[in-house]
Amino acid sequence: MVTLKDIAAEAGVSITTVSNVVHNRTSRVSPERVAKIWEIIEREHYVPSMTARTLANADSSIIGVITHMTPQNTGSTMSDPFLGTFVEGIESRTRAEGYYLMIRSVEDARALDFLSRSWHLSGLILTGMFQDDFFTCTQRLGIPYVLIDSYIDQPDVYNIGLEDEKGGYMATRHLLEKGHRVIAFASPSVRPGGVVEKRLQGYQRALAEFGVNYDPSLVFTQEISVEEGRRLGVALSEKKHITGIFASADILAAGIMAGLRERGVRVPEDKSIVGFDDNYLCQLTNPTLTTIHQDAEQKGILATDMILAQLRGEEIPQRSVILPVSLVERESVRDLNRK
Amino acid sequence: MVTLKDIAAEAGVSITTVSNVVHNRTSRVSPERVAKIWEIIEREHYVPSMTARTLANADSSIIGVITHMTPQNTGSTMSDPFLGTFVEGIESRTRAEGYYLMIRSVEDARALDFLSRSWHLSGLILTGMFQDDFFTCTQRLGIPYVLIDSYIDQPDVYNIGLEDEKGGYMATRHLLEKGHRVIAFASPSVRPGGVVEKRLQGYQRALAEFGVNYDPSLVFTQEISVEEGRRLGVALSEKKHITGIFASADILAAGIMAGLRERGVRVPEDKSIVGFDDNYLCQLTNPTLTTIHQDAEQKGILATDMILAQLRGEEIPQRSVILPVSLVERESVRDLNRK
Repeated sequence: MVTLKDIAAEAGVSITTVSNVVHNRTSRVSPERVAKIWEIIEREHYVPSMTARTLANADSSIIGVITHMTPQNTGSTMSDPFLGTFVEGIESRTRAEGYYLMIRSVEDARALDFLSRSWHLSGLILTGMFQDDFFTCTQRLGIPYVLIDSYIDQPDVYNIGLEDEKGGYMATRHLLEKGHRVIAFASPSVRPGGVVEKRLQGYQRALAEFGVNYDPSLVFTQEISVEEGRRLGVALSEKKHITGIFASADILAAGIMAGLRERGVRVPEDKSIVGFDDNYLCQLTNPTLTTIHQDAEQKGILATDMILAQLRGEEIPQRSVILPVSLVERESVRDLNRK
Repeated sequence: MVTLKDIAAEAGVSITTVSNVVHNRTSRVSPERVAKIWEIIEREHYVPSMTARTLANADSSIIGVITHMTPQNTGSTMSDPFLGTFVEGIESRTRAEGYYLMIRSVEDARALDFLSRSWHLSGLILTGMFQDDFFTCTQRLGIPYVLIDSYIDQPDVYNIGLEDEKGGYMATRHLLEKGHRVIAFASPSVRPGGVVEKRLQGYQRALAEFGVNYDPSLVFTQEISVEEGRRLGVALSEKKHITGIFASADILAAGIMAGLRERGVRVPEDKSIVGFDDNYLCQLTNPTLTTIHQDAEQKGILATDMILAQLRGEEIPQRSVILPVSLVERESVRDLNRK
């Protein structure tokens, strides 16, 4: 069996250099040297054994991207453009850095524990985790992790989040400024301490600023999907008093628009709507969708970088990064002040 | 170290049964037995080492989902709903069967070879592969594989494809039947033997049936993305003589519609359009999109099943499965025969 050492000796370089070339980390190696090393690797039929390396180092170079499976959400929901784009960011970054990507839905903390330990995962990127037992499990594993869009009430948690409260506030204030006073809030169910609760708090703050009483009957909860959105749109078409809708995901907003249209309710003439995410769906709806912007790909890249920094033992200036949001105005909101 | 054998002995069951429970293959084990085995596993702090198992068996239980990286397409394009839904099907199926999922873009056959051998991948699901050197590499690896939407001119290839020629034919014939005679064909670049070429052949067959000459200047090529589609839509808005458009992906069709709309061109009044895929975007556009239906999730499940059957040495009645397509009529095509 040809080893890394043999290749390094023949090429007259260090083992680390060969390892870097093999794992595609070639930014500090000259193209000529890369070519020479590959020539030797191919001639000698060398293949690194990731599994042997994993056993030796108790570290697989695999980063697990974990989505939480709930009874309502049994799949990985990869078809939501937000998650797809997020994973795209992770895939390109891990690849560039010589790491690997495993995607998995887990139903409970035990499954997460098993997955991570049996594979010696190098790190965990956990999306939408909101249960403390998951977090306890993650901490006990003692490997680098980043929580995405999770609110865990503990200090020094590695987390990439969003200005969720502000996003909810901006979306709602925009509708209020345009003269809307009866505004529906559409989202997945509100879990204490979760993303949705923050957005709801922003919605409530904007209402309060405009002297509008919070009415719980205007909160509509359903899973994030086109079909659930469409059904809600059909239901909302009957509720003439509601003129504004804030939906906490673009895919939900687009579904609501489809349901409204099915019943002949026009956007924005009859009802105005604001989404959340600013993914490509906003440009595909007609009218185009006013929404709250976030950068999903950047979130994936940042998450990967935070894992890599932990793996390298680098100083991490800020464990909790909160990404900014902004309002993107398009065509889906009518100004009721202009008659 | 507690081993699988210890757990099996204590539970009074076979090693295979414990292994099945650990890897979530519990359909043939009673719930009481599953609970008992888990109770022992937790008490004894047992964790299976996937890497030790991999080294012992030279088989990792990881199925690689490979997307081919081209200079034009540098990412995993997971944000396309087609690929997202396809991966969702694979993820749920691999999980149910005790396998794991690794997603990777590879730039060339060498990268594929390295990935597969260094990880002892159990199987490969290869999407959109069109180069013979990739296929030669895959065959040389000697592990289960399935090609998705690939046309490789060799016998006995494991392949899950689609009635692509028929899809192109049905879409174009639909436009012709509605009185359209100048019909654009929008798709990624046509590669000899690839999916796009088949759809183009279907387009040409329909034209010939209606006595319309094939005009290569009506073929518009660009990558599959909303932005590229939008740009094409803007360009097509100038071409008044074109009344029909067949786009070989829904995401492209939706982008074209956005571009047309930007320039005040109405669908279907001014131009009609037919997509391909029948994913959720078709219901989100306004008007809704007439398209060619395929089942992306089912494709992912079938691909996984074909890998699993090979792994188990089961008889595979048909190596090449061609999934059917159908036309789904919605609102994006105008009937020019009705004035």
